[in-house]
Amino acid sequence: MQQEVKVLLIGLGLMGGSLGLALRESPRVLNIMGFDSDSAALQKAIDIGIIDRPVSLESGIPEADIIFICTPLGSYPALLGSIRAELKPGTIISDVGSTKEHVMKLFQELPEQVWGIGGHPMAGSEIKGIHGADRYLFENAVYCLTPAPGLPETVLDSLVDLLGVTGARIKIMDAAAHDELVATVSHVPHLAAVALVNLTGGSDAHLMMAAGGFRDTTRIASSNPEIWNDILFFNRNHILNKLDSLITNLHILRDALLSSDADYINDELNRAKRIRDKIPRIHRGLIPSFYDIVCIVPDKPGIIGQLGFILGQQDINIVDIEILRVREGDGGTIRLGVPSESDAQKAVNVLKSHQIKAWIR
Amino acid sequence: MQQEVKVLLIGLGLMGGSLGLALRESPRVLNIMGFDSDSAALQKAIDIGIIDRPVSLESGIPEADIIFICTPLGSYPALLGSIRAELKPGTIISDVGSTKEHVMKLFQELPEQVWGIGGHPMAGSEIKGIHGADRYLFENAVYCLTPAPGLPETVLDSLVDLLGVTGARIKIMDAAAHDELVATVSHVPHLAAVALVNLTGGSDAHLMMAAGGFRDTTRIASSNPEIWNDILFFNRNHILNKLDSLITNLHILRDALLSSDADYINDELNRAKRIRDKIPRIHRGLIPSFYDIVCIVPDKPGIIGQLGFILGQQDINIVDIEILRVREGDGGTIRLGVPSESDAQKAVNVLKSHQIKAWIR
Repeated sequence: MQQEVKVLLIGLGLMGGSLGLALRESPRVLNIMGFDSDSAALQKAIDIGIIDRPVSLESGIPEADIIFICTPLGSYPALLGSIRAELKPGTIISDVGSTKEHVMKLFQELPEQVWGIGGHPMAGSEIKGIHGADRYLFENAVYCLTPAPGLPETVLDSLVDLLGVTGARIKIMDAAAHDELVATVSHVPHLAAVALVNLTGGSDAHLMMAAGGFRDTTRIASSNPEIWNDILFFNRNHILNKLDSLITNLHILRDALLSSDADYINDELNRAKRIRDKIPRIHRGLIPSFYDIVCIVPDKPGIIGQLGFILGQQDINIVDIEILRVREGDGGTIRLGVPSESDAQKAVNVLKSHQIKAWIR
Repeated sequence: MQQEVKVLLIGLGLMGGSLGLALRESPRVLNIMGFDSDSAALQKAIDIGIIDRPVSLESGIPEADIIFICTPLGSYPALLGSIRAELKPGTIISDVGSTKEHVMKLFQELPEQVWGIGGHPMAGSEIKGIHGADRYLFENAVYCLTPAPGLPETVLDSLVDLLGVTGARIKIMDAAAHDELVATVSHVPHLAAVALVNLTGGSDAHLMMAAGGFRDTTRIASSNPEIWNDILFFNRNHILNKLDSLITNLHILRDALLSSDADYINDELNRAKRIRDKIPRIHRGLIPSFYDIVCIVPDKPGIIGQLGFILGQQDINIVDIEILRVREGDGGTIRLGVPSESDAQKAVNVLKSHQIKAWIR
């Protein structure tokens, strides 16, 4: 059994809030202190039960055994400078920022025996700030840790053990390797999304046509520009490399289209599909493999409770539910997940007997 | 009241199936005939009740008043050639393909008094084929129609009237204007997604890191390569134009990053956010604006039905529900939408009284 710890969360947004909700389920956590310059976020953190009490940095830092920095990357230099004197030996300090090489350089300036371990949980939510806090945000997500060379193994083990409660898949890696990977899968795609959105010029005709798939695929372009400015410059060299490769690849696609090289285009489309289809899905369902039913229901009050009631009476357990589309005052399509094929068949039959159109998808 | 019609769907995939499910709710539709070379899709269409009966093209074409081509673009030339002789005057023939200039050229070869009207409903689903068929797929989605110059207005009106039942927002536009718009919001983003996926090289390290946001933003790269090869070559000129602009914009971003021009990067990030945030959201919820509750529930059989039951007892109407994340055997977070703030407060209180952690998001 690892020792019990007092945790300090600096920054109570989506990341800090979700980390707090998970950490308080750990038997190793004695209490969770929180700091945020936004008093509304602080109050919400207390109301939801994310932190036990708010603290000033001066009082919280010396008391904490483990500190998580959950503020934007650009705030790190000033923050680390201001708390440096308060840090006591043996403290672990980690973060949730999207780049790690630069952060590890900043951590080199920490006092002796204060252990800086870079962290990057790769999970997010459309709901920003503490309102998006979710006890299971990191469930099954990759959570990178980038320890400095020479970090005592017991220290790293202590942090890894503590983070187990988040349900994340902890990956220990070198900070530079991390930054190269995220340049490819996150930072360059972000710049591409920005360029694609700006290509529309924002005209009404474009906006109207963009309401479907384009809106989804460029979702990241709606992220906080300040945070992203920090990320892009913190990871500039890796991004420049990968951006050059992307531009080259787009040129080759362009030339193939121009010269009617359908074979090349076809090969690239198929290659992309093969790779994309191999990307693991983060399972968030109750049961990884279940059977889907689609039903068309009238739009009337209580219909969701009624569906649950009808199927519950037959001992059919709904393990997933999704409202696909609805027309107000008319009806909607709902997807229900059930654990077995026989349950699915039974559900279709009972729904049909209630005049609800349903089929196994 | 417009006249009653017999409809023929050629191709029973996601589009044809969803169109059929909507059209059969129209009082104007006498019956729906279906053709598909895939006998399993045909059988499913009968089982779900999408079509009244399967037909051969020879028997179905002369009987139909309105024909929808719902097969890949590449199949059009041969298909139109083979059915040409069977088409009777007065028939409307439309399609659901993603490019329109080339299609309208093909429609110029139709017999006299056979009315070709290009169509492009801008909606999709992750579930491909007839299994994804959804009566409300086109609800609030933009549905472009590109009539040829000189088409009698009454003919266009008849099709527009018929499509009203889909709930789509019909937009009449010029085929060339359509193709330029979709090059920007769909076809070039598709090529960008393909290039981004291929940039990863498909290595295990990249795939692991790509499990989060990257997987979502490159979803389109998993589309059917055959269909996309057709689209890219049918709309080649517009795509080449827009692809050049994208490459230029990426170059400028690259140079700004290289020369540490943080102001330019910041301006572009903010401009993209402003435009992206203006893209209208396709409303699919029962009530456009509602209040969200988040609750953390134990993972046990029947929990969804139980939530519905608990809130139903208090006359709280759940208008939206989403399982956010779940850990098997432990618990999960569920988002519930209710119509009013007082309902939301009441729901939080009653859930708390059942020992369920809940708050208003």
